[in-house]
Amino acid sequence: MRRTSFQGLDCPIARSLERVGEWWSILILRDAFAGLTRFDEFEASLKIAPNMLTRRIQALVEAGMLEKRRYSERPPRHDYHLTARGRDFRPVLWALLDYGNRHFAPEGESVRIVDARTGEAAEPLMIDRRSGRALADPDFSVAAGPAASAATRARLARRNSP
Amino acid sequence: MRRTSFQGLDCPIARSLERVGEWWSILILRDAFAGLTRFDEFEASLKIAPNMLTRRIQALVEAGMLEKRRYSERPPRHDYHLTARGRDFRPVLWALLDYGNRHFAPEGESVRIVDARTGEAAEPLMIDRRSGRALADPDFSVAAGPAASAATRARLARRNSP
Repeated sequence: MRRTSFQGLDCPIARSLERVGEWWSILILRDAFAGLTRFDEFEASLKIAPNMLTRRIQALVEAGMLEKRRYSERPPRHDYHLTARGRDFRPVLWALLDYGNRHFAPEGESVRIVDARTGEAAEPLMIDRRSGRALADPDFSVAAGPAASAATRARLARRNSP
Repeated sequence: MRRTSFQGLDCPIARSLERVGEWWSILILRDAFAGLTRFDEFEASLKIAPNMLTRRIQALVEAGMLEKRRYSERPPRHDYHLTARGRDFRPVLWALLDYGNRHFAPEGESVRIVDARTGEAAEPLMIDRRSGRALADPDFSVAAGPAASAATRARLARRNSP
């Protein structure tokens, strides 16, 4: 749901959350990556109320992350597929997955990212593609970009830690 | 807010979202990374209702991501700092930031990740630390881990795409 009171909408984190920040939306995307396409499949997987599922899927379609496709003419039936923009969300999902495994899985990992050939568990690490260095404090930080508003520049200038 | 109806809680994505999946929580973490510590600073930054902010901060404290510290005895005053677990959330924030920049910033980037020394924009890429390979389809996928429930094994076995 959009929150009209929300401030700082030139923040790219806020913009991503505006589209996909709702809990269910992220789990719908997770299931879409797992190959689910039909409304009833998402409903069964998420145990979510149909009206809520309809709204969340519609929001993802409007955000350009899911695409509605007709797969049967008679009777008319459609399903939902990840677009290129939707597929590009995977690093966010995998960052959440890795975080959950490291911090909220005291009994061990129930789902993990693996090398598709060997089955060996991967160790996700975010790097800067150009330099190859790990994207971590204090080597990297956030800064105003060319399209920053005055408010965003002020917010970033206020930063008192890296 | 926890949703008691939520299924599949051995999914690490769901577990992360359970702790931080609320919109505001993620923006509170963003601001904490930017150096904000005091309640009134978060309130001013986020334009959020105080009761909502109290709840979201409390949830982050309970999740072990923020720590409440007394900084004045008379009058009694406290503020909030990222714990090691909270700081570890940065890759998720940066993945969201990068996603927002690539997909929802038609006028250009307002905030970006930069090399702290040179100011040059970084290009985030998630790799497998062991092999150094990009963490992307079809080289990597998700699979059941040692602690997977029967339901999670079934869900992952149902996958009809990588």
